Amino acid sequence: MLDLFKTAPIITLITDFGTDGPFVGSMKGAILRINPRAHIIDITHGINAFDLLDAAFLVSCSYSYFPKNTVHCIVVDPGVGTQRRPVLAVSKDYFFVAPDNGVLSYIYEKEAIEEVVHLTQERFFNKQISNTFHARDIFAPVSAWLAKGVEPKALGPRIEDFIRLYIPKAYLSEDRKRIYAQVIYVDLFGNLLTNITNGLIEKNSIEDFRIMVKDICIDRFCSAYEDVEEGDFGAILGSQGYLELFASKGSLARTTGIKKGTKVELVFG
Amino acid sequence: MLDLFKTAPIITLITDFGTDGPFVGSMKGAILRINPRAHIIDITHGINAFDLLDAAFLVSCSYSYFPKNTVHCIVVDPGVGTQRRPVLAVSKDYFFVAPDNGVLSYIYEKEAIEEVVHLTQERFFNKQISNTFHARDIFAPVSAWLAKGVEPKALGPRIEDFIRLYIPKAYLSEDRKRIYAQVIYVDLFGNLLTNITNGLIEKNSIEDFRIMVKDICIDRFCSAYEDVEEGDFGAILGSQGYLELFASKGSLARTTGIKKGTKVELVFG
Amino acid sequence: MLDLFKTAPIITLITDFGTDGPFVGSMKGAILRINPRAHIIDITHGINAFDLLDAAFLVSCSYSYFPKNTVHCIVVDPGVGTQRRPVLAVSKDYFFVAPDNGVLSYIYEKEAIEEVVHLTQERFFNKQISNTFHARDIFAPVSAWLAKGVEPKALGPRIEDFIRLYIPKAYLSEDRKRIYAQVIYVDLFGNLLTNITNGLIEKNSIEDFRIMVKDICIDRFCSAYEDVEEGDFGAILGSQGYLELFASKGSLARTTGIKKGTKVELVFG
Repeated sequence: MLDLFKTAPIITLITDFGTDGPFVGSMKGAILRINPRAHIIDITHGINAFDLLDAAFLVSCSYSYFPKNTVHCIVVDPGVGTQRRPVLAVSKDYFFVAPDNGVLSYIYEKEAIEEVVHLTQERFFNKQISNTFHARDIFAPVSAWLAKGVEPKALGPRIEDFIRLYIPKAYLSEDRKRIYAQVIYVDLFGNLLTNITNGLIEKNSIEDFRIMVKDICIDRFCSAYEDVEEGDFGAILGSQGYLELFASKGSLARTTGIKKGTKVELVFG
Repeated sequence: MLDLFKTAPIITLITDFGTDGPFVGSMKGAILRINPRAHIIDITHGINAFDLLDAAFLVSCSYSYFPKNTVHCIVVDPGVGTQRRPVLAVSKDYFFVAPDNGVLSYIYEKEAIEEVVHLTQERFFNKQISNTFHARDIFAPVSAWLAKGVEPKALGPRIEDFIRLYIPKAYLSEDRKRIYAQVIYVDLFGNLLTNITNGLIEKNSIEDFRIMVKDICIDRFCSAYEDVEEGDFGAILGSQGYLELFASKGSLARTTGIKKGTKVELVFG
Repeated sequence: MLDLFKTAPIITLITDFGTDGPFVGSMKGAILRINPRAHIIDITHGINAFDLLDAAFLVSCSYSYFPKNTVHCIVVDPGVGTQRRPVLAVSKDYFFVAPDNGVLSYIYEKEAIEEVVHLTQERFFNKQISNTFHARDIFAPVSAWLAKGVEPKALGPRIEDFIRLYIPKAYLSEDRKRIYAQVIYVDLFGNLLTNITNGLIEKNSIEDFRIMVKDICIDRFCSAYEDVEEGDFGAILGSQGYLELFASKGSLARTTGIKKGTKVELVFG
């Protein structure tokens, strides 16, 4: 047993269970019964049902703000009860417990992963394992044991063939005059996050540009949402490191009907 | 005072208050002012307004996963301000604090209750008691004191005439060829939980059966949601111990319009 | 450094971020990375987007139930990235961390504020500060440091010109026969909170009165929601100290279409 935790160990939860049913409560109970000191933090339970990339993206936005040794427990699990494997990914600072279905794809890309373990040791699971709720019966208990100091190698064998999903990337045209991109997330305010990273923009001039998305054109690069008049459109470098499109004090998504996956084209000059 | 709690004492909350208003925050404050060490866990605040059986069912799905001595505080309280009594039900492992309106009906059935106490000792309530918000003024403070070790007998007299609501049960026909049942819960994914328990099924063969509900017929018994093609229907033994009907990677409730209370008939052979 | 916190210090969160996105999780991480002992309590993340008075009102309903030294972190921040100042308001018992945009208006009215500090000391912020998410980069870290005992004066200079928004008040007619008021909040149950305070009512007889709002008239003053038949309308002194209008076991807001801001007239005799 490691003794990592001078303060209460933190376990975060990201699921598509919503907060109205019994699922989240049962997960929390299953954690606390094993590890009553665990400090459970809800990141979100509002992932779109079965949307692996949505969950993968949300994890990637939040995980790195937590203290070293935080256990991130991520459960979007359409294949529960099948042969899909439960896994633990370990990086220098964090543990990620999840089904092996690609929900960790962004993590595999952003974080230096030291090992991925196939969770096979049933003594760290619930005694009874349902076919439909491994969040409660496998992922929560394993997270609780990790937060108690159980070492990854005790949980199962190392694997290399874990699943990574394709993550759509923005790319620059050969003449470096255009970026082809897409909307990867729509937030509660109706702001559109594109997959154009700060890095891609900074390498180019952004003094003179226009962004075409659906039938609208945005050519105002802002440093605050209120830089344009209420209702007007702008682009801004968002807090997640991606270029974001917005309507000031309004919802660009609702105003335009633009959804996740919509193509975005940025033209310089 | 008992000294039950070496780790922070756990208080869970189940209410119909939603999470957008001031109610839940005030309850949490009222708990922490009395017992700042309390570890408050939201099970859900998404019970349908005034739906006692919905709350009773949700409690029954989650409570037993929590550690010994957890205080479960359950407030769905249409009769607040009337003569309905605030109560505490005590079992070997748990405390249940709630209005005496039937919201503990499933608990009275599943858990061996040692005593039910009518909460009358106002020194354990808020100083000012509103007519409309006993969650904050009575149930939260009493939960906080319990989690501090106050003994049940200090909180009021024992009662025997606490309220139990009728819980609809599935039953087997005399010839043991049919089960008459109903949908008792629809989850976020649109899965339909019936009141057919694992026990009722296991006593019979389930190799050959069909389930009629509304105008559809389900005859695939699965061990995982993905055992049938996307959109196809199946039945599965769910994580709460009830037979569950589902559409793979879809919402059976939305597809069919089936709601809580709909009759379900299972025919063997 | 003060040593205020023998138990885990409490930080409450009130935002308009919703719970489906990455925002709340990142805030919590940013707090815990600085202060892993912090006990984070969600009051609500369901404030209407950009609705400063809604947030101001919700804060005023909940803050006083928390223990002394609680840090209340309130972020509704349409002006993020502009010159609007981040502030800390300190009262005898509480800390309020928020943007200086009026979101503390009710607090400035209800609580004796000892000082308001302009948060300028960047060593208590995140190292990287985005233009769009000061909740994570400024308000959460400052709250975490406060909960660790950092003194307000270390955080920046005192200011006097902080922003207070107009809060609509109910007023009595000269002949003391009428109260002119409005609906200031609609709760989840569809109850309408007016800005008629208990004090205003108690100074007058309420034995004989009628309340006109939109095209309906309410003349039943109740001490419990169930004092009138299901669906009937009544008035009651609510738990927040305001006169509240309701439909028993129903939603007055949905039944009548009455919204926040609707005028209310109460006539005595």
